[in-house]
Formats: sequence, structure tokens, C-alpha cells
Amino acid sequence: MVTFDFHTKIYYKDIDQMGVVYYARYLEYFEQARTELLNDIGLIVTEIEDAGFYMPVVEAVANYKLGARFEDEIIIQTMIKKVPQARMTIDYEVYRKKDNQLLVTGHTIHGFTDKENGQPKRPPKFLLNRLSAAIN
Amino acid sequence: MVTFDFHTKIYYKDIDQMGVVYYARYLEYFEQARTELLNDIGLIVTEIEDAGFYMPVVEAVANYKLGARFEDEIIIQTMIKKVPQARMTIDYEVYRKKDNQLLVTGHTIHGFTDKENGQPKRPPKFLLNRLSAAIN
Amino acid sequence: MVTFDFHTKIYYKDIDQMGVVYYARYLEYFEQARTELLNDIGLIVTEIEDAGFYMPVVEAVANYKLGARFEDEIIIQTMIKKVPQARMTIDYEVYRKKDNQLLVTGHTIHGFTDKENGQPKRPPKFLLNRLSAAIN
Amino acid sequence: MVTFDFHTKIYYKDIDQMGVVYYARYLEYFEQARTELLNDIGLIVTEIEDAGFYMPVVEAVANYKLGARFEDEIIIQTMIKKVPQARMTIDYEVYRKKDNQLLVTGHTIHGFTDKENGQPKRPPKFLLNRLSAAIN
Repeated sequence: MVTFDFHTKIYYKDIDQMGVVYYARYLEYFEQARTELLNDIGLIVTEIEDAGFYMPVVEAVANYKLGARFEDEIIIQTMIKKVPQARMTIDYEVYRKKDNQLLVTGHTIHGFTDKENGQPKRPPKFLLNRLSAAIN
Repeated sequence: MVTFDFHTKIYYKDIDQMGVVYYARYLEYFEQARTELLNDIGLIVTEIEDAGFYMPVVEAVANYKLGARFEDEIIIQTMIKKVPQARMTIDYEVYRKKDNQLLVTGHTIHGFTDKENGQPKRPPKFLLNRLSAAIN
Repeated sequence: MVTFDFHTKIYYKDIDQMGVVYYARYLEYFEQARTELLNDIGLIVTEIEDAGFYMPVVEAVANYKLGARFEDEIIIQTMIKKVPQARMTIDYEVYRKKDNQLLVTGHTIHGFTDKENGQPKRPPKFLLNRLSAAIN
Repeated sequence: MVTFDFHTKIYYKDIDQMGVVYYARYLEYFEQARTELLNDIGLIVTEIEDAGFYMPVVEAVANYKLGARFEDEIIIQTMIKKVPQARMTIDYEVYRKKDNQLLVTGHTIHGFTDKENGQPKRPPKFLLNRLSAAIN
């Protein structure tokens, strides 16, 4: 398993009139967190794209237990549990920093497509190699 | 079943560098669509809140088949299939208007909480009545 | 002068914990409104881009008088007052529909650039012609 | 003058189909940056609100010179030049970290209102004191 803890903070832009983070925002935190997880094992998304690959989300799931509030610091614990065959699953657990309270869990599943024609494609070798090395 | 077709259009604000709608945006369309479905059967979210209830999302799921593009018109077909007991499930199917292509499916599950103290609460009678009347 | 009234409605996604629309969101409404103004006089932004032009914002200004609230309907009155030379100025006035209260005013100024290399470019003839015809 | 350098990074959520940050997003960075500037001199926005004050934006201006791109790191240099009388002006300069290129400049002007009734109010003493101490 590869894991990465992405730290971020909640601002006004994120909060709705219930006084908690608007539910769609967590998908943005997920995206930031997975970008940094990949970065942490030497996979730069820009370089993956420059190599001709997109990694579109094909499924996103979030389960909301408790809402983060303005100026809360949160940690998005991000995990890739196995080397993808065709699709890559990434898991997320969002914690409130001050008391380690679990707020949200979720996952995204990503396909790999050809940047030029949008067709499905096998994941690039260098990505599989990096992930294998990091997971095992 | 209660259904409502919410029509909207894709703008620059929605599109990412893959040239398609950023995946979190569909959760915003879902929210707009369910607000209008409820509105359509006489349930105004502001009035539900004024009656002391919030309807926080406890689960959100989206499955992405094809991306909408800039200036596409899309239809979010929104459905409530049964009267909620404790939680209310709402289903969504997003179609591209010009060719009726299915782009995204998903659902949200909503709890009911007390606006003042955040505690879980049974759904308000007037909401159950309206939904019962509309569904049956 | 060319004018267009863009109608939209405020949803949860737009509202912050002050209970009013988050200030950055008005720039999204401005974008939707100008896209529809251009559309209304036969200028499709996608076609302008297909012709090789981008119209990046070089200045955005908003003056906030009163905040729109959840489920308010608003009208973005959008104006182009003169045919652009190098840069195109678009003015906006945002009104609350129910009582015609002025909420926000603002403008954006747009450059024209070559889609391929990002260099400044004179606005396309067909755009100038359409705007001239519509303004005069 | 009080200054603060807020560091952030550009993700997919921020980028539009021109391949640069969508113009409204800079107002979100401005908000994050000013929250941290205030924080840095001991003014927590949540505490200002708990003391009964909102600081709504009454004017926002951004001038766009060059667009930040995906995975760019940017620095929002944030400045308060003088102690507010009725309104507080905050200035921003956004730089690309890797080459110190200036991307965007702007400012926001904030009023002070009573959290309960929305009426204009003089800024709180503790805020004026902190700002005075920090500026002089």
C-alpha cells in the first residue's frame, strides 16, 4: 500500500450556509491529495499527461460523517492499495487535525485514456513500475 | 416515483484542461436538480430549513461515462423512488441534450437533522406527505 | 449598445456561511452572462475558439452592494457599449428578480490572443462585424 | 505595512480549457491569503466573527497578466498598507514561484457589519489595535 497525508485548511470559499464544507468540495481535496500522493512517489501528473495519458475519474464516492468547519485543518489520508490493471482505485479518509475525528471517507476510480483520441489505454509502464516499487 | 428534468448548460467555469466538465461539478448539478425537483412538488428547501431541518448529504456517488463539453446543454433527470424513512435517496442521470447520450449517473443520500443542534431527526411530516402524494 | 439579461438562480453551492453568495461566484455569473450575450447576437464562444482565438480576461472588477441569498433568482444585465479595438469591455449589473434590487455591478476586460501561441492578436473580423451590427 | 506571503499550488480543479487558472479562482486565493495574513498577526477570522463582526467584500479587482498552469506553485503576496477607518483595503500580488514571474495583481475592500443585523459598524477595537501595532 502507498499512503500519503495531504494537509489542507478550510476557508470561506468551502463553507455553505449550514456552516460546514459543501459536499462537492471534498472531491477537490481528493484530487489535490492524490496529485500529491503520486508526486510523492515520483509520478508528476503533468509528466503523465505529457507522456500521452489522461486519468479521468470513472467513479467517485464520498461518505460524509461530520462536516469540517471554517479554519479547521484537515488531513486527507490517501491510499493506493494495489497496482492497477486497467483501472486505478484510490481511497481517502479525511480527518480533522485537532482531534483526529474522521469526517469523510471515499474513493475514486480512474481509467487511463489516450490524450489525443480519448480511447482507453493500458496504464503507462513507468507508472506501473513506480507504483509496484512503492506498494511492495 | 417522482421525477424532474433539470436543464443546464456548461460554461468555462465547469471545464478542466482535459476539455470536459471537472468531476466535482456534477455534484453541484445534482444539488441544483434536486432543489428543483423538490420545488416542483411544492417543497421549497428554504422553507424546510425555516421549519428547523437540514438535509445534509451522507453519501454521494457518481459514475462517469462521458464528459460534457463547453456549451453543451445537459439534462439532469432526477428521481425519488420512495418515501424516506430516516434517509432520503435521490438518483440522477445526466444526459447530453443534443443526442440524448448518457454521460453520468449517480445518487445522493440525505439525512435529516435539527438545524439548531445538528442531531438526527425524523423527516418533517409535510415533506413526507408531499412526497407520498407525488410518488403514489 | 448590446444588452442581454441572463437569468439564473442561487443554490447551496453558491452560499457561504454569511448566508449570501460567495464573492468569487459573481465572476462565474458574469462569464455565463457574457457567453449568452454573445450567443444572442450569433457569436458562439466555441466557434470563436475554433477560429483560433481565445478571449482571456485581463481585468475583472466587482462592486458588491447587497448579497443574493439561497433560492433568490437574479438577473445579470450584461452590456457591450462599443466595438472593441484591441480589448473588449463588458459591463454587468446584477439584480434580484423579486424586487429589482441592484446587488452587484462590475466589468470584465478581455484581450484577444492566438489560441496556438498565446500572442495578442486583433479581434476576428466576424466578431467585429457582428458587434458593429448589433451595437449600431 | 503588514505583508504575508501565502503559498499554494494549482490543481486540476483550478484550470480551464485554455490550460490556465480560471479567473474567478484568484479571488479564492485572495481570500485564503488574507485569512492567513490576519492569522499571522493574531487575528483569527472565526474570532472576529464570534465577536459579532462580518467583513464582507465591497469591492474586488483583479488584473491578469499571465496565467498560472497546472502544478505551478504560486505565492500570493498580501499587503495591508494602512489601518482601516470604515473600510479595509487589502492588496495582492500573485507570483509564480519557479521564476518569480508576476501573474496577477488585485485588491479587495472590506466593510465591517454587525453579524446579527447586517448593519455597517466600526471595525472592532482589537482589530484596529493589532493592525496598528503590526503596521507601525
